[in-house]
Amino acid sequence: MNITTEQLFDHARTHNAFTAEPVPEATLRQLYDLMKWAPTSANSSPARIAFVASPEARAMLLECVSPGNVDKTRSAPVTAIIGMDMAFYDKLPALFPHADARSWFVGKKEFADTTAFRNASLQGGYFILAARALGLDCGPMSGFDAVKVDAAFWAGTQIKTNFICNLGRGDPSKLFPRSPRLSFEDACRII
Amino acid sequence: MNITTEQLFDHARTHNAFTAEPVPEATLRQLYDLMKWAPTSANSSPARIAFVASPEARAMLLECVSPGNVDKTRSAPVTAIIGMDMAFYDKLPALFPHADARSWFVGKKEFADTTAFRNASLQGGYFILAARALGLDCGPMSGFDAVKVDAAFWAGTQIKTNFICNLGRGDPSKLFPRSPRLSFEDACRII
Repeated sequence: MNITTEQLFDHARTHNAFTAEPVPEATLRQLYDLMKWAPTSANSSPARIAFVASPEARAMLLECVSPGNVDKTRSAPVTAIIGMDMAFYDKLPALFPHADARSWFVGKKEFADTTAFRNASLQGGYFILAARALGLDCGPMSGFDAVKVDAAFWAGTQIKTNFICNLGRGDPSKLFPRSPRLSFEDACRII
Repeated sequence: MNITTEQLFDHARTHNAFTAEPVPEATLRQLYDLMKWAPTSANSSPARIAFVASPEARAMLLECVSPGNVDKTRSAPVTAIIGMDMAFYDKLPALFPHADARSWFVGKKEFADTTAFRNASLQGGYFILAARALGLDCGPMSGFDAVKVDAAFWAGTQIKTNFICNLGRGDPSKLFPRSPRLSFEDACRII
């Protein structure tokens, strides 16, 4: 599918308000079917996603977000909860069949937790850019009560919430002015 | 710039060997100038990148990688060290000028460290897809001695290494068969 770098990077903005236009289930499936291919350590693929779309589930989620995120989340047709499966290694026999990769993580909680967090966050980056590739606007947020979100949406699992992300058609009239970025010299060096 | 989702996601592969074709400095600058626009929490932009290109720096890096990553790293013309600035908040007065965002993090080490790790990893995802958008192949790795890499490349700073990533023109004859991914039903739900 043809897209542009402007659509993914320089022209895309974090949106704070969304139109009522719904996001079809087919688009959410396309989103996952793009992002799933991008790389993770040992193909560990720890990200788990709950797409919160029904009025009941959205009301539950609104109880969990920080005051400054309530109105923007209320306006979105769908909010994705990007979680991380802290027991991701139990899927490695299927995901990395050519070695006993599960044994690298079992009983090594700190290493496993770090791997889950790093790689689910990488997948969060893939998620945002895949959504933009499909014409969706994103509003990623880390202002929420993680204990409440985990209890409401991941009870009975070993999944923990990493961040949440509003999805839909953004309302450009509600954008803030764009903030600056670090220069190449401030953030990078070639050695 | 026109690109395709296949180039970024479904047709792209993690490469284990690279041709001798160099990566021009202009391409590394373009890579950063794409990835810098994608979102981070409070525009915190904690990722810092050392592009290891000179023979001397590459020899130092080879001393730090896991045995299984030596040959693939040796073959790459450039390896990026994606670091995270644990004192990223000192740049927030410039990056997030409309609020005193620095005060949200100063003296809250656990919250600051988590924010640095999550957002530098998100930026790692943007980095990989921006590299692919520019026609580069990537070989991301987390098998290295982080203490040694930090000492060799980030001494005197508050930057810690997150992961490293070979960059260049991949040699498709050295690819492994592609591993499976989780189905939508295994990784996602719509509620």
